[in-house]
Amino acid sequence: MFYHVKELQYQAKPERPDPIFARKLQEVLGGQFGEMTVALQYLFQGWSTRGDGKYRDLLFDTGAEELAHIEMLATMIARLLDGAPIGDTEEAAKNPVVGAILGGMNPQHVIVSGLGAMPADSNGNRWDAKYMIASGNLLADFRANLNAESQGRLQVVRLYEETSDRGVRDMLSWLIARDTMHQNQWAAAIAELEEKEGLVVPSTFPRELEKREVSYTLFNLSRGNESACGRWASGPSMDGCGTFQYVENPQPLAPKPVLAPAPPYIHDTPPGVLKDGPLMPPM
Amino acid sequence: MFYHVKELQYQAKPERPDPIFARKLQEVLGGQFGEMTVALQYLFQGWSTRGDGKYRDLLFDTGAEELAHIEMLATMIARLLDGAPIGDTEEAAKNPVVGAILGGMNPQHVIVSGLGAMPADSNGNRWDAKYMIASGNLLADFRANLNAESQGRLQVVRLYEETSDRGVRDMLSWLIARDTMHQNQWAAAIAELEEKEGLVVPSTFPRELEKREVSYTLFNLSRGNESACGRWASGPSMDGCGTFQYVENPQPLAPKPVLAPAPPYIHDTPPGVLKDGPLMPPM
Amino acid sequence: MFYHVKELQYQAKPERPDPIFARKLQEVLGGQFGEMTVALQYLFQGWSTRGDGKYRDLLFDTGAEELAHIEMLATMIARLLDGAPIGDTEEAAKNPVVGAILGGMNPQHVIVSGLGAMPADSNGNRWDAKYMIASGNLLADFRANLNAESQGRLQVVRLYEETSDRGVRDMLSWLIARDTMHQNQWAAAIAELEEKEGLVVPSTFPRELEKREVSYTLFNLSRGNESACGRWASGPSMDGCGTFQYVENPQPLAPKPVLAPAPPYIHDTPPGVLKDGPLMPPM
Amino acid sequence: MFYHVKELQYQAKPERPDPIFARKLQEVLGGQFGEMTVALQYLFQGWSTRGDGKYRDLLFDTGAEELAHIEMLATMIARLLDGAPIGDTEEAAKNPVVGAILGGMNPQHVIVSGLGAMPADSNGNRWDAKYMIASGNLLADFRANLNAESQGRLQVVRLYEETSDRGVRDMLSWLIARDTMHQNQWAAAIAELEEKEGLVVPSTFPRELEKREVSYTLFNLSRGNESACGRWASGPSMDGCGTFQYVENPQPLAPKPVLAPAPPYIHDTPPGVLKDGPLMPPM
Amino acid sequence: MFYHVKELQYQAKPERPDPIFARKLQEVLGGQFGEMTVALQYLFQGWSTRGDGKYRDLLFDTGAEELAHIEMLATMIARLLDGAPIGDTEEAAKNPVVGAILGGMNPQHVIVSGLGAMPADSNGNRWDAKYMIASGNLLADFRANLNAESQGRLQVVRLYEETSDRGVRDMLSWLIARDTMHQNQWAAAIAELEEKEGLVVPSTFPRELEKREVSYTLFNLSRGNESACGRWASGPSMDGCGTFQYVENPQPLAPKPVLAPAPPYIHDTPPGVLKDGPLMPPM
Amino acid sequence: MFYHVKELQYQAKPERPDPIFARKLQEVLGGQFGEMTVALQYLFQGWSTRGDGKYRDLLFDTGAEELAHIEMLATMIARLLDGAPIGDTEEAAKNPVVGAILGGMNPQHVIVSGLGAMPADSNGNRWDAKYMIASGNLLADFRANLNAESQGRLQVVRLYEETSDRGVRDMLSWLIARDTMHQNQWAAAIAELEEKEGLVVPSTFPRELEKREVSYTLFNLSRGNESACGRWASGPSMDGCGTFQYVENPQPLAPKPVLAPAPPYIHDTPPGVLKDGPLMPPM
Repeated sequence: MFYHVKELQYQAKPERPDPIFARKLQEVLGGQFGEMTVALQYLFQGWSTRGDGKYRDLLFDTGAEELAHIEMLATMIARLLDGAPIGDTEEAAKNPVVGAILGGMNPQHVIVSGLGAMPADSNGNRWDAKYMIASGNLLADFRANLNAESQGRLQVVRLYEETSDRGVRDMLSWLIARDTMHQNQWAAAIAELEEKEGLVVPSTFPRELEKREVSYTLFNLSRGNESACGRWASGPSMDGCGTFQYVENPQPLAPKPVLAPAPPYIHDTPPGVLKDGPLMPPM
Repeated sequence: MFYHVKELQYQAKPERPDPIFARKLQEVLGGQFGEMTVALQYLFQGWSTRGDGKYRDLLFDTGAEELAHIEMLATMIARLLDGAPIGDTEEAAKNPVVGAILGGMNPQHVIVSGLGAMPADSNGNRWDAKYMIASGNLLADFRANLNAESQGRLQVVRLYEETSDRGVRDMLSWLIARDTMHQNQWAAAIAELEEKEGLVVPSTFPRELEKREVSYTLFNLSRGNESACGRWASGPSMDGCGTFQYVENPQPLAPKPVLAPAPPYIHDTPPGVLKDGPLMPPM
Repeated sequence: MFYHVKELQYQAKPERPDPIFARKLQEVLGGQFGEMTVALQYLFQGWSTRGDGKYRDLLFDTGAEELAHIEMLATMIARLLDGAPIGDTEEAAKNPVVGAILGGMNPQHVIVSGLGAMPADSNGNRWDAKYMIASGNLLADFRANLNAESQGRLQVVRLYEETSDRGVRDMLSWLIARDTMHQNQWAAAIAELEEKEGLVVPSTFPRELEKREVSYTLFNLSRGNESACGRWASGPSMDGCGTFQYVENPQPLAPKPVLAPAPPYIHDTPPGVLKDGPLMPPM
Repeated sequence: MFYHVKELQYQAKPERPDPIFARKLQEVLGGQFGEMTVALQYLFQGWSTRGDGKYRDLLFDTGAEELAHIEMLATMIARLLDGAPIGDTEEAAKNPVVGAILGGMNPQHVIVSGLGAMPADSNGNRWDAKYMIASGNLLADFRANLNAESQGRLQVVRLYEETSDRGVRDMLSWLIARDTMHQNQWAAAIAELEEKEGLVVPSTFPRELEKREVSYTLFNLSRGNESACGRWASGPSMDGCGTFQYVENPQPLAPKPVLAPAPPYIHDTPPGVLKDGPLMPPM
Repeated sequence: MFYHVKELQYQAKPERPDPIFARKLQEVLGGQFGEMTVALQYLFQGWSTRGDGKYRDLLFDTGAEELAHIEMLATMIARLLDGAPIGDTEEAAKNPVVGAILGGMNPQHVIVSGLGAMPADSNGNRWDAKYMIASGNLLADFRANLNAESQGRLQVVRLYEETSDRGVRDMLSWLIARDTMHQNQWAAAIAELEEKEGLVVPSTFPRELEKREVSYTLFNLSRGNESACGRWASGPSMDGCGTFQYVENPQPLAPKPVLAPAPPYIHDTPPGVLKDGPLMPPM
Repeated sequence: MFYHVKELQYQAKPERPDPIFARKLQEVLGGQFGEMTVALQYLFQGWSTRGDGKYRDLLFDTGAEELAHIEMLATMIARLLDGAPIGDTEEAAKNPVVGAILGGMNPQHVIVSGLGAMPADSNGNRWDAKYMIASGNLLADFRANLNAESQGRLQVVRLYEETSDRGVRDMLSWLIARDTMHQNQWAAAIAELEEKEGLVVPSTFPRELEKREVSYTLFNLSRGNESACGRWASGPSMDGCGTFQYVENPQPLAPKPVLAPAPPYIHDTPPGVLKDGPLMPPM
């Protein structure tokens, strides 16, 4: 269950409006690694955790915080859109600055949302739950989370470079710090789980059932062997259970497949036609 | 540039057709963590690598292999669909086994693809490039890759449990082994990069520009403090640059935001109406 | 900012697992009118409200509650999936009940989410922010909300009819009651705003700028005139500003448009070809 | 069955080309509340009406008209694109007006559609049937329709403000008038149905089966009680069947849920790992 | 402009309900090559035709007919859903026939549409305007149309094989005949345009500007040279302007690309890290 | 199975960066008819071909080549993005050229991909497997392929017109030539199959089962009879099996459908309400 307070977790006040930056900032609200993704991802992971305890609690702590970040970004975007210019576009374009703004802002910020934030990315693509990950296996999912916080911090840093507004930078530098924490936090949780379960997800599948002869083999399938120099190509494997091997000239292990013909009721290309047999008259 | 050989990297022959399993197997071909995702993800990461050397080569090696896995799965699915039953559904349903098959298979495997594999998941959702990740930052992206191989191996293992067909299991146990390698491989590459760059992505943003007072803080935003027991809540941070802190009762740091009214040409709810002022007659 | 407590707003405990119903129940979690839609819709409407006061507060009250409903449904779905059967599908299909379950459940509930709820509808389509509405105009948006609660209650009622599990029905009857409140609540807010602004959204566009000669006209464009009998076809208009009219045989008001040819650099079909002129030799 | 005439329902002729406005105008052709949505929504509602009579006829009347509006907008957009500039973008950008046009127009209007309208919104997102609503319950659906016409008129009004072209404004003011009618019309139909069925959709679910103790209760889940002042918080409910109540400090009604562990064949995080028990060696 | 009559172009009456077949039939209503695709595709092509005359008229004739086919299919689907069973799924599953129906039908046909047709395919994916094609070049688009009618007839034929209901087959055999016409019609229009413009689209690009040395070359990029036997590998080209050639061992024509490093403000992997230089301490 | 070489099939080097053109060029990489579509389309068609021989080989030859084209385009786009400007947008906008670039480029090329190509079109919509076609019937699919190469060449030609960069034009003119080949090649394959199977797909459905009375009939459903002048309206049909006919005033062939009421458990609008009977009190 959730309680809301109207105060913000951290301030979200730009020095001045900037509708183009409002559009860009949408990326970390409603893009692939925006706050909507992490908020819902952590909450769904928590709801799916079959059992209780610290991991579940950690997921809810962080999920609730990400909801607050959506709120901060939505507030910031609304303020960046304050008084966004409209009017006759061709007229406006005669003033290069106004023209650039009109060209560069998201037209839906006027037409659709009436100067409000949208659940969308910097190109106006609506947020999609295809971005989310919750598998029931926490080691797998914490890797997803570490990745999300890495991609997210990278994007916020790039946005920081794209503005000189001190109010915007203030908020972004706060979000960057939170992403530092969240990368550290998921790294810590991963370290704990790897200590308990080992490196390979899922840990519960009996290793003797996999084809262990290729469990530590790098196939050199792109000509040139620069990849032979990496830690992944020789020496003990990262999970401590094998030795990396490098196959210079990998070959197919199975013959060319030939599929059986389809039954007539499927109306695929008839076998006779495929076989290049005698021509058949049209029906 | 790519060269194709028609031989398969590994065999893909079921003991017998099984249209329901064909549908399920689509998940690891065209789902969020299917082979289409990793193949294209690794290739795009390689194409975007700004420079040369072993990481780029490794990405192309692995991307090319994943293309071969798409091929194996497409072949296996086509064979699982051999002779899939059709006919009058209500009649068929009188035979429970046939009824269950008709109910459980993907109808598009007949109507749309004519007994061929589809670029879709186990619910028939077409593959979407929203699943892919390529950021230009390899440490971030290798974490995405480690996650993808973790989710992928987990899904293949679950599919292994859902069939007793020895031919299918033979292929799956080969794919499971390859995922073992790929988890090890990306873990190795991550270890190398973390040794060079440190834990936090991106490593190049000056730390003094982030709000360091919250860089290692866990906010307890879900009532109950089980999360205080984890490695992430106290002691040195994973990046070695700080100390984890736990805030039992986190409070807002900024006041309630009140947004400025929209200009009249936006036609949002007029300020007077929001303010609960005197009623205005309709125009 | 948001605080989470782990207790549920209302209980979510089925009498027994039912994986097929788990799939169906996804509709009101992650479908077009599921709880994800309304939770995010109300919160975004609140964040975009330019001003302060009771409407903004009401939106946050209700948005926070809908988050709790997501949580209840996610919990219920996980429990309905408890011990979901897997195993060899063809074998299983020989037991009709198991066969029907395997055919009718969502395969991703095993393969992807590991017996957890998904952010998806009853056909496994992931939730999409295209479902959401937040325009900055509260009268418009409250109509969207009234519709969402109407569609939502209708769907929950249909689901109630599809189960006899007393635990499930208990929770659904609670959600149905909440939807009763929410329909009443948005109806009340609409009534208030209509009293202030009138019926037509937006109220701020000068009526003399619209083509008032067709502002109250019903064009009979489907042969047969049953529609002439409705309240919308004669008498005073609902907004009190006009009189409904019925046009039995509506005619076009403008001639057939003919578009100018495209410039050559567009490489559309050349005008000469369109005009059926003399044949041109291929280049 | 449908008959087409090539004459337009109303004229669609701009004074001059304006490729940026062409992009914006796409919103009301192929956006969430564009003419494609309402045309198909009304027709599907009509086709699903189980019975005959005036509502079905009204839906077809209006659906057929919306098809004519798609046609008008497609014609207008094509004309706004007449002679759209292309050429070397960097060169062009040296002329600020041309640069702004090139920056602000939809590049697919050249590359993909060859100066034709697209089934897409103002950000180039293709139209999606996820926007549509047809439930079989007309009271629910007419509320969807009233909302669609409210959002639609709001968007057209905003577009009107963004151009000074008298030809464009002429057509928009006609569409605005039609949306006035359609808001009035659906409001009339809703009034009729509410008189017959009451306020709450669906009207046919026995009220004694819902948890009536929360059917008229507002839970104050966002701190601050501005929402207590609304008509929705006290007094008789809008449906006349209850009394609104305001709960200042809502509490959870059910304990914290703990989910049962998953079966081993699901390969979720093992219960022992979740329980923070003794470390297990990797397999 | 469009006029609707309520009579159907052709009858749409099944002998008996069949909810599973209703689900399947959705494919040709709302799938990739369903009637929604062709109706809107032909109409948009017509609206974008820059000029007048027989092609534009043909597009409107056919587009209007496809609207009538949507109507027939929507009617048929509603009737196939008459009295669709619901109730407790586990109970129902004990009767194999009912169990198979519940497992095989689209749950949204009950929950969402209330026994009405949906704008979706046989897996419940909503129709998407990404399926549509309208380029402004009629020769290109008529090829799209010929393909659409080929895929469409193939799908309807497969559906015909999946039912024994005489009413359904009657309607399908009518649609199959219409697809025969439409394949013939677009083939005729293509033949006309090819006679005027030649084979290659667009005909208006000066041939001397393309790299003519590879305009008729087949590169053998899949090992094995079965493809050398086709009409495409030797002899005069189809457009009469060249001679087909077969390259047995195609080689790259350009060196390995190495991309320049990104500027620091992009925060990609730093060049020093890529170059495998000395380790840098974390910041 | 696939082997990669790092050399490019053809060079991909612009004279100078051009971030706006980079955005546009995405269309033919990740748009509806971009190289991702054709690469995956041809490969899936090959994998689904039930049999062996030249058609399968041709599909793999061409599919492998299209993978090389993705690579060329990805390389070109990365180079066009070299040193893309960022910085304060409002400042930048004061320089019209920089302002136009910032307004016209894809912001995700900075924020998301770090100056790399994206699997998306020129509006930033991610690639979607809904674009792909593989039906199991080669005559149908080769028509899809001919269309794809026609649309694709048209788009590349339009892009050629939009740049004066000699490096970009050099690569585009190579791709244009390849599309010339591919149009010729699929036309040749179609000619072969039509000679064997006849014009109408699928060729295997018995013609006597279709309603042959409408197999060659053009219904004039758009007022005006320009379409009567085409080759499709009279004379022998293209498949040689019939005679084209033109119906000037087509009439419905079936009465107005009236659907049966829904069962009560569906909660559609009750029949009594539809029938306009006496008012019922709310429950």
